[in-house]
Amino acid sequence: LRTAVFLYPRFSEYEISVALSVLRQGGREIVTVGLNAAPVIGESGLTCIPTCTLDQVGTNDVDSLVLPGCDGIGHLRNESRLFDFIRSVARQGAIIAAISSAPFLLAKAGVLNAHRYTIGFTREQRDFVGVFDENNYVDAPLVVDRNILTAKGAYFIDFGITLGKMLKLDFDQRWYR
Amino acid sequence: LRTAVFLYPRFSEYEISVALSVLRQGGREIVTVGLNAAPVIGESGLTCIPTCTLDQVGTNDVDSLVLPGCDGIGHLRNESRLFDFIRSVARQGAIIAAISSAPFLLAKAGVLNAHRYTIGFTREQRDFVGVFDENNYVDAPLVVDRNILTAKGAYFIDFGITLGKMLKLDFDQRWYR
Repeated sequence: LRTAVFLYPRFSEYEISVALSVLRQGGREIVTVGLNAAPVIGESGLTCIPTCTLDQVGTNDVDSLVLPGCDGIGHLRNESRLFDFIRSVARQGAIIAAISSAPFLLAKAGVLNAHRYTIGFTREQRDFVGVFDENNYVDAPLVVDRNILTAKGAYFIDFGITLGKMLKLDFDQRWYR
Repeated sequence: LRTAVFLYPRFSEYEISVALSVLRQGGREIVTVGLNAAPVIGESGLTCIPTCTLDQVGTNDVDSLVLPGCDGIGHLRNESRLFDFIRSVARQGAIIAAISSAPFLLAKAGVLNAHRYTIGFTREQRDFVGVFDENNYVDAPLVVDRNILTAKGAYFIDFGITLGKMLKLDFDQRWYR
């Protein structure tokens, strides 16, 4: 079973960099997933080739999911296949880790209804997009509620370390601070 | 004038992730450089396509250079074109930022002779490779000596922020902590 890491256009490289390193340290197999077969250019300009496309990755092969934040995540709002995928792995009880703006994708997919979460959006931004349950919002750097980890972008080191602990990986935190 | 960022096989993604983000925030144009035209797989498994190859990048177009650490950097020890490139930009007074094991590349290229530096190697490792001047080694998280910035890997946030300051970029540090 592998960890799927989504790479969409303008994904934030640094926000998932420590998570990726922790997964590697822990000997986890990852699969990077693109919306299609095109190379993906991250927020800071790194051009990446995903391992496979969204249509190729089987939800049964995946027990965990990492969603990077994204510069202007609204451009993903009509990617219904992405939301189907998120719903599908959530139903299987996968560990899902979403940072910065990425909890928007979870809320939009309908998997944040019964989980406490945080996100790097202001109250006004959360109200504007209209998919968040304000009762479950927690103004914290990082929130773990059962299988779902959410974090604000600046806490990307804690995000990676906490994901590693949720997956019970063996790794050396001193690499990162 | 652009910042060249080297991507060699097994480069550490997280070690340069904050530097890349600071460069982007500051509106710097970057060029990622591969040893050849092949996609490059980082230490954590991210597959990247460099903007150009070492033979294509002109040293005159570059005023700064970022060198990521690398899992087993010894595999680069015979890349004479890489050392030629480093010497060439150093002679032009470029700002050079090397993290973790990457100061090895600077020492090997002969540009660390008159600069204080740090590196993520033990004394035994430094002695073993035989290219370091021990008198200039500083056991610090981060060392800036004129145009050369060196840092230990765990200080990758400070590395990125210090590079941004050396390049006089305008950026928001709160993105990273």
